[in-house]
Amino acid sequence: MLTKKVVELLEADHILQDYKVNGWVRAFRSNRFIALNDGSCLDNLQCVVDFENTDEAILKSISTGAAISVVGTLKESEGKGQRVELEVKSIEILGPADPEDVKKTILQPKKHSLEKLREQAHLRVRTNTFGAVMRVRSKLAFAVHQYFNEHGFYYINTPIITGSDAEGAGEMFKVTNLDLKNVPKTESGEIDYSKDFFGKETNLTVSGQLEAETYALGLGKVYTFGPTFRAENSNTSRHLAEFWMIEPEMAFCDLEGNIDLAEDFIQYVLKYITEHCKADLEFLENRLLQDEKSKPEKDRAPMPLREKIDFVLKNNFKRVSYTEAIEILKNCKPNKKKKFNYIIEDWGADLQSEHERYLVEKHFGCPVVLYDYPADIKAFYMRLNDDGKTVRAMDVLFPGIGEIVGGSQREERYDVLLSKMKEIGVDEKELWWYLETRKLGTCKHSGFGLGFERLVLFATGMSNIRDVIPYPRTPQNAEF
Amino acid sequence: MLTKKVVELLEADHILQDYKVNGWVRAFRSNRFIALNDGSCLDNLQCVVDFENTDEAILKSISTGAAISVVGTLKESEGKGQRVELEVKSIEILGPADPEDVKKTILQPKKHSLEKLREQAHLRVRTNTFGAVMRVRSKLAFAVHQYFNEHGFYYINTPIITGSDAEGAGEMFKVTNLDLKNVPKTESGEIDYSKDFFGKETNLTVSGQLEAETYALGLGKVYTFGPTFRAENSNTSRHLAEFWMIEPEMAFCDLEGNIDLAEDFIQYVLKYITEHCKADLEFLENRLLQDEKSKPEKDRAPMPLREKIDFVLKNNFKRVSYTEAIEILKNCKPNKKKKFNYIIEDWGADLQSEHERYLVEKHFGCPVVLYDYPADIKAFYMRLNDDGKTVRAMDVLFPGIGEIVGGSQREERYDVLLSKMKEIGVDEKELWWYLETRKLGTCKHSGFGLGFERLVLFATGMSNIRDVIPYPRTPQNAEF
Repeated sequence: MLTKKVVELLEADHILQDYKVNGWVRAFRSNRFIALNDGSCLDNLQCVVDFENTDEAILKSISTGAAISVVGTLKESEGKGQRVELEVKSIEILGPADPEDVKKTILQPKKHSLEKLREQAHLRVRTNTFGAVMRVRSKLAFAVHQYFNEHGFYYINTPIITGSDAEGAGEMFKVTNLDLKNVPKTESGEIDYSKDFFGKETNLTVSGQLEAETYALGLGKVYTFGPTFRAENSNTSRHLAEFWMIEPEMAFCDLEGNIDLAEDFIQYVLKYITEHCKADLEFLENRLLQDEKSKPEKDRAPMPLREKIDFVLKNNFKRVSYTEAIEILKNCKPNKKKKFNYIIEDWGADLQSEHERYLVEKHFGCPVVLYDYPADIKAFYMRLNDDGKTVRAMDVLFPGIGEIVGGSQREERYDVLLSKMKEIGVDEKELWWYLETRKLGTCKHSGFGLGFERLVLFATGMSNIRDVIPYPRTPQNAEF
Repeated sequence: MLTKKVVELLEADHILQDYKVNGWVRAFRSNRFIALNDGSCLDNLQCVVDFENTDEAILKSISTGAAISVVGTLKESEGKGQRVELEVKSIEILGPADPEDVKKTILQPKKHSLEKLREQAHLRVRTNTFGAVMRVRSKLAFAVHQYFNEHGFYYINTPIITGSDAEGAGEMFKVTNLDLKNVPKTESGEIDYSKDFFGKETNLTVSGQLEAETYALGLGKVYTFGPTFRAENSNTSRHLAEFWMIEPEMAFCDLEGNIDLAEDFIQYVLKYITEHCKADLEFLENRLLQDEKSKPEKDRAPMPLREKIDFVLKNNFKRVSYTEAIEILKNCKPNKKKKFNYIIEDWGADLQSEHERYLVEKHFGCPVVLYDYPADIKAFYMRLNDDGKTVRAMDVLFPGIGEIVGGSQREERYDVLLSKMKEIGVDEKELWWYLETRKLGTCKHSGFGLGFERLVLFATGMSNIRDVIPYPRTPQNAEF
């Protein structure tokens, strides 16, 4: 007998006899109607039980959360709410779920807070919300790979354990094999890393960029898609200690080409989910609308979810130089009325989330790309402009999210790079290999980093980044 | 003016006027013929320079390793060795490469050892061999995602930093934020992990399986593809401290379904590269043939690379129970003549690489799947058979590689799992969430792990696993 997924049965356009389907009971009404879900899609399959001819013990075991296997015939539904339903011939209980146990969990069919769901992260994917979020996440990830594959990029895996610090100053997690109870020391009292697994101090990567650059300078166009880490004590709805980052890097490409890529790429992957995740996005949109009813109007999203995604698909990103942005911000109402927490006074100020969101949400009303930032507030590897004070950096700012992409054209000139490293104290011995690429056929090249969870946040309308990754890692939390 | 990749020009079927192409000089012969490579494919584009009308300074800078930009017309080639060539109109030197600098590196056009190439891992992707390996690796990775996406699996990212140890006994890297110079201790002298970032002891994951199981028990079919870690002091050509693993997990699936998946999956991804990496595989095959000429005949691969891949595509994997395998091994010549390092005497023995390779390479002559292993030599989460002494485990064994896949049907019965955990001392409090899934709609489910680098080794014919990942991590080595 053939086994089918729920999604296959729901999409069937003719009567199917004697098919088997496995799944979990979401609800059982009137001793007759099972709502069966197997994770293959949002919707449940209605299975109609002939309760008069079904064993009493089995009927009792058909309860919320139970895993069952059903054989039956797929027919047009007589009831409302579904096109088709399965007329059940036989049922097998695979794994029961004691209602007393279920009551203690989020599987109990009632509204649970997102906080509560997080505490039971091993079960939350069995709810409509998290099923939808994780299917959208998966499809987004596939779209990422498909985009780059179609556009001539090679996928590379840069190291997770690393001796170098790409950003020059990130807070990093240490990776070690030393006995922490009795850390070996040298005669001068320093930690003796020669005794450690790698014979040197190592950390979890904050970015694969520097390694990706070396590969772009050979393969032409490459990208990474892997985990990165920040040991920042930021307990916010936007930060994770462990998150997935996408980092394309292109040889022979300047900042304009880099911005073009970011825009084209983001539009492609969002378009992909509007085509492949229709039901899940509709559900998430309604969930958000429902959720926001309890919020004051000013805190609600300006557009429903799918309209927001369409808006990004249909509008070009507005490109604005940092200098122009500062002028706008200096003269805007919230700045003059001192409504910002950080008042913008002079060129050179680092922009805060409140400023970015003002530009995107109030001033331009569309995604914004800021470029040519002051060198002093950006990383050492960004290409210095001829003005000597700005660098070819760019940030893509999204409504509700703020910065979703950060990128730059890289400094390809050996002398300029070396003197910058010396100036800010980046160890040139540690990065000898990075520097050396600038002596052996250097060329202009560019790339960016996109935090995958921020993209999933945007695409799903969820508001806390902990709710778009299966098992979030945050300060004081590494459960599961 | 349009810019084209080398691969686009080499595949063009008509004359193209005034196109630009960027790349690196691989060679410059007779002041006339540039072999230009941009990483988009293995082959170089021949660019023919009109040296009489080209500036002397530019001619001098066209040297191996230099990055250049060329404008010209693509024509049928008059010379041998290439179908088309670019008649150069103008050349720009983007980044020179001083021949004195090049001489010190592996960019110098002569044969370098793989060890030497590893020391310059930031440059080796600019060689034919590593360009080919990394393109094949990238295409294999894409095929992985495409296979699972087409077959209804959802991609999930399981945590990298974890408090649990999936295998029960792996050697793990510690992840910490504590000051190693002055590790905080409790009053009783233990390490005070409450002061650490996560408030508990954490490690780098050795497998995402346990978390993947919880997701399969909600989404139905899922897979991971991410980095995993082993702090084993194994300095062999088969081991990395950091490697990428693919772990599918399926609800409502038994061991047979699991083996079916492994076979279908491996054949799919290998077929994909035979279709998408023709030139690279041909090059790697010839490289291997060349390389093996210096080896004694008995150490040479029994088949050329592409024949070996075809062989796996065209033959079903032979399925053999552990018990049958032991009988074969007990009675085979190398065992009787004590040629094995580990003589097989009794049922229950753990198989070594020499035994696995005997079965695959000598006895069956095809990929072999061993199943139903003794419970005592396998992990706690594998499903116990009714005989009470074997578990529903399976290993896929490949020629030249040995174990490429390890998987099992998982123990879905709460009581059996709990007593097994108690028996071998797995902390049930740490894994409360894993256990709880067995009480709330448990069902049979299965999955496996495939070490991605081993697959790349097989597909490229390389012999050292350090040569199929951009920046390998091994004992005493975390350079770059």
